[in-house]
Amino acid sequence: MNSSTQKPNLQKGCLLVIEDGQDQWILMKLAIKSAIMGVKPIRVTNPKEALAYLNDCLTVGVEFPSMILLDLYLPEREMGWHLLHEIRSLPAPVNLIPIVMLSSSNDQGDISNSYNRGITAYMVKPTDTTSWVETFQMLGEYWLKTVSLPNHTNFW
Amino acid sequence: MNSSTQKPNLQKGCLLVIEDGQDQWILMKLAIKSAIMGVKPIRVTNPKEALAYLNDCLTVGVEFPSMILLDLYLPEREMGWHLLHEIRSLPAPVNLIPIVMLSSSNDQGDISNSYNRGITAYMVKPTDTTSWVETFQMLGEYWLKTVSLPNHTNFW
Repeated sequence: MNSSTQKPNLQKGCLLVIEDGQDQWILMKLAIKSAIMGVKPIRVTNPKEALAYLNDCLTVGVEFPSMILLDLYLPEREMGWHLLHEIRSLPAPVNLIPIVMLSSSNDQGDISNSYNRGITAYMVKPTDTTSWVETFQMLGEYWLKTVSLPNHTNFW
Repeated sequence: MNSSTQKPNLQKGCLLVIEDGQDQWILMKLAIKSAIMGVKPIRVTNPKEALAYLNDCLTVGVEFPSMILLDLYLPEREMGWHLLHEIRSLPAPVNLIPIVMLSSSNDQGDISNSYNRGITAYMVKPTDTTSWVETFQMLGEYWLKTVSLPNHTNFW
């Protein structure tokens, strides 16, 4: 991708990771550090913490995430879907942040229902370290270097 | 990306390209052919043709696109946004298809407004042939090989 089409959305941004599994989080943190240089992951473990963080973005100016990675089963899928609905119901620009669902489930009902409820993309969690790094390389290449994201500073 | 995480969503699918510019379309068609093997692009030039195609998917079973590439200025941006609204108002599963907006505009108002109106991702059109090929390689790698898309056969 040449410089004319690169959109370095997240080179100084952060990534909000909503993940209740400690083992998964350790793998993800290592993979993010290896695959997406300069992007700080902020992890929360449950819907309450996630909404508190996003509300703080709107009210007290904590760092605005350029992307949200959302686990579906938190630990029940209804909790993931409910949180998705709550994030999409927040005021702009928080409701416009791309939400990539990362789940171990490859059930077609989970996938279709998640799109129906407003996710941006659904990705099945990898099962080994190498694939986690490849997944974050791909997320970084696409969402951070190719896509133009909404600029949250326009909304303040 | 190893085989456990590959999701060959579009290897036998098609791509609906809504693009009014003939010169742009020629570049895009060549780039798609070069970058995404096995994916057939179907081009329409205006909102009426686009909606007719998508309604035919629902009613007479023409090939269901796995992704929609939507030009914003058709030739006014209000036409692109109105078409986006109409597609998102169609019955499932057509309303769930990822819509990637491809536009020459890098205006932040165009970008934020497009997210606000329901696009999946916004990408600024490249300006040379090599970058068009790289753009479609990235689209293919991410949306066709990494992401799990809703399976439209679930809805029939």
